[in-house]
Amino acid sequence: MSVTPISQSNSSAPSDFATVFARLKPQMAALDVFLRGQLAAFEPEIRGMADYCIDTSGKRIRPALVFLSGWNGGETPSPELVRVAAVVELVHLATLVHDDIMDESELRRGRRTASRQYGPEAAVLLGDALFAHALHLASQFPTTEVCHAVSDSTRKVCAGEIVQTLRRGTTDITRADYFRVIDLKTAELFRISCFLGGKLGGFPDAFVEAASRFGRHLGIAYQIYDDLADFFGQEKNIGKTLGTDLQSGKVTLPLLVLMELLPEDERALLVEEILHRREVDLPGRIRQMGEMGVFKRVAAEVEAELAQAEAALVPHGELPPAWLLRQLCDVLRAQVGGLQA
Amino acid sequence: MSVTPISQSNSSAPSDFATVFARLKPQMAALDVFLRGQLAAFEPEIRGMADYCIDTSGKRIRPALVFLSGWNGGETPSPELVRVAAVVELVHLATLVHDDIMDESELRRGRRTASRQYGPEAAVLLGDALFAHALHLASQFPTTEVCHAVSDSTRKVCAGEIVQTLRRGTTDITRADYFRVIDLKTAELFRISCFLGGKLGGFPDAFVEAASRFGRHLGIAYQIYDDLADFFGQEKNIGKTLGTDLQSGKVTLPLLVLMELLPEDERALLVEEILHRREVDLPGRIRQMGEMGVFKRVAAEVEAELAQAEAALVPHGELPPAWLLRQLCDVLRAQVGGLQA
Repeated sequence: MSVTPISQSNSSAPSDFATVFARLKPQMAALDVFLRGQLAAFEPEIRGMADYCIDTSGKRIRPALVFLSGWNGGETPSPELVRVAAVVELVHLATLVHDDIMDESELRRGRRTASRQYGPEAAVLLGDALFAHALHLASQFPTTEVCHAVSDSTRKVCAGEIVQTLRRGTTDITRADYFRVIDLKTAELFRISCFLGGKLGGFPDAFVEAASRFGRHLGIAYQIYDDLADFFGQEKNIGKTLGTDLQSGKVTLPLLVLMELLPEDERALLVEEILHRREVDLPGRIRQMGEMGVFKRVAAEVEAELAQAEAALVPHGELPPAWLLRQLCDVLRAQVGGLQA
Repeated sequence: MSVTPISQSNSSAPSDFATVFARLKPQMAALDVFLRGQLAAFEPEIRGMADYCIDTSGKRIRPALVFLSGWNGGETPSPELVRVAAVVELVHLATLVHDDIMDESELRRGRRTASRQYGPEAAVLLGDALFAHALHLASQFPTTEVCHAVSDSTRKVCAGEIVQTLRRGTTDITRADYFRVIDLKTAELFRISCFLGGKLGGFPDAFVEAASRFGRHLGIAYQIYDDLADFFGQEKNIGKTLGTDLQSGKVTLPLLVLMELLPEDERALLVEEILHRREVDLPGRIRQMGEMGVFKRVAAEVEAELAQAEAALVPHGELPPAWLLRQLCDVLRAQVGGLQA
């Protein structure tokens, strides 16, 4: 199981995801049992590979969104929520497997990526098989609603990743371009997790719609945080090499804001670095971002999204999922705060 | 539209797929219009890429199996059959896009592969998006049956491809191993095409089951033919370089049979070639296969599968789909016969 077994906190502002997720221990345990049980559906030769991917699943934020959005206060997790949590997690894992091929990443959460472990050829197909199995689980609900939502979201996630890939090494990117990509590649799966959780939890349509909006804004906020952590995180905490976005020519919000703030001649030098025509000076760029207030401006964008996420839930404050979901905003705030230190 | 508009033949043994498919002109035209209409569902940046893939779709055998298995004699194609034909074709196109990345193929049917045209990174995601869209279309049927069947089949197709990939460059492969892989990677999608066609065509369960068995055996026969054509085809007819399986260390049935027939010392030399420890002598191997009766033995395996395919349909001879499907067996027989010439 991937959730650290820590005692439940009564603090009003939990500082990490594990604190919030500790409440979800029975749900996450049920998800783990369920996912392990699914391995039997894979052909013997690829069972071990699928197991390997499920094991590196990390924080399981998307299943948590399903469970929290569908929260009914009971101790026993609903089998329907467990199944749909498995669906969104498998879709996410499939995209990670494919992302790691394209990024030629060596490690993911301290383990060799599937692409390094089994070769990129097998990894392409393994991602496909995980995705196919996710849709197969989605088709086990009584109606086509889950299949419909999940397949549509997946296409959007892929579209976001494609647009991002096509843009690598181009520097004439606007904030609107950036937000559109993260809306597709990250926020969409957060949104659908909340949508399906609320829906299968039996909540009224107005709440389901509000939870979806919450999920979308939380997803945007999370991706901006992630992009900020690529410059301001500590490698031991985020479990990957810093500065990979700049090194690979990916223009994320911190770089966009830096470009906006730099005088024209200095901006031209940064563009040269992004285009690999000059050596990247990562420590220099991080220092510059701190000095010119890039960190603060990007953190303000995270906060703006979190405010929108919270606002979506205001009319539903009496429902248990609403205040549980809101805690995730505080967690993300605390994580952004922890970056600068 | 990919079907050559030729006049309908009254011959009892049509010699190519186009003759049989000429009967399906309205269906294939409707499929083409439908697939083009789906492009609007893709984000603007990837619409052109999806269009490019749909355009290289080739023979459209799987949609033909859907239409023939669901044939009700009417002129106007049923919208349900058109949609499910699009589903199986999109799944097939997605697997082609991913296959071409792994094989590092330059051309597919005389055009640059998507991987060469847009880069392997974009191609991984494009395949994912095509597949996701296939499942999205599958979720538009009133019940979850189509989603269920298609996602399960897709996982099997991926499993077959993974096992084949893992085996590349290994030579201790049995006939059972070979048949298991082609059952998964090729016959499964043929099978499900017939299953869904018969089902949505409103035919009785016994026929649907028989059509599924027909599809499976036709698929196995087709893959063996394809593997035989890799040695005995003419490049201008099959549209790809000959001998690629041997060059890439893929042990298909013709090679398996040759290994069975060679005396031990000569077999050891062939194994060295497959393992890339000796230069491959392709013309020599093809000549040897002819001399030792490999062609005949492999062709006999195709025939055995076709006989099983036809046998499945015998109890349903009075239904229009049965005799239409059977024609496909004659087409494949004629194509195998055309190889040796």
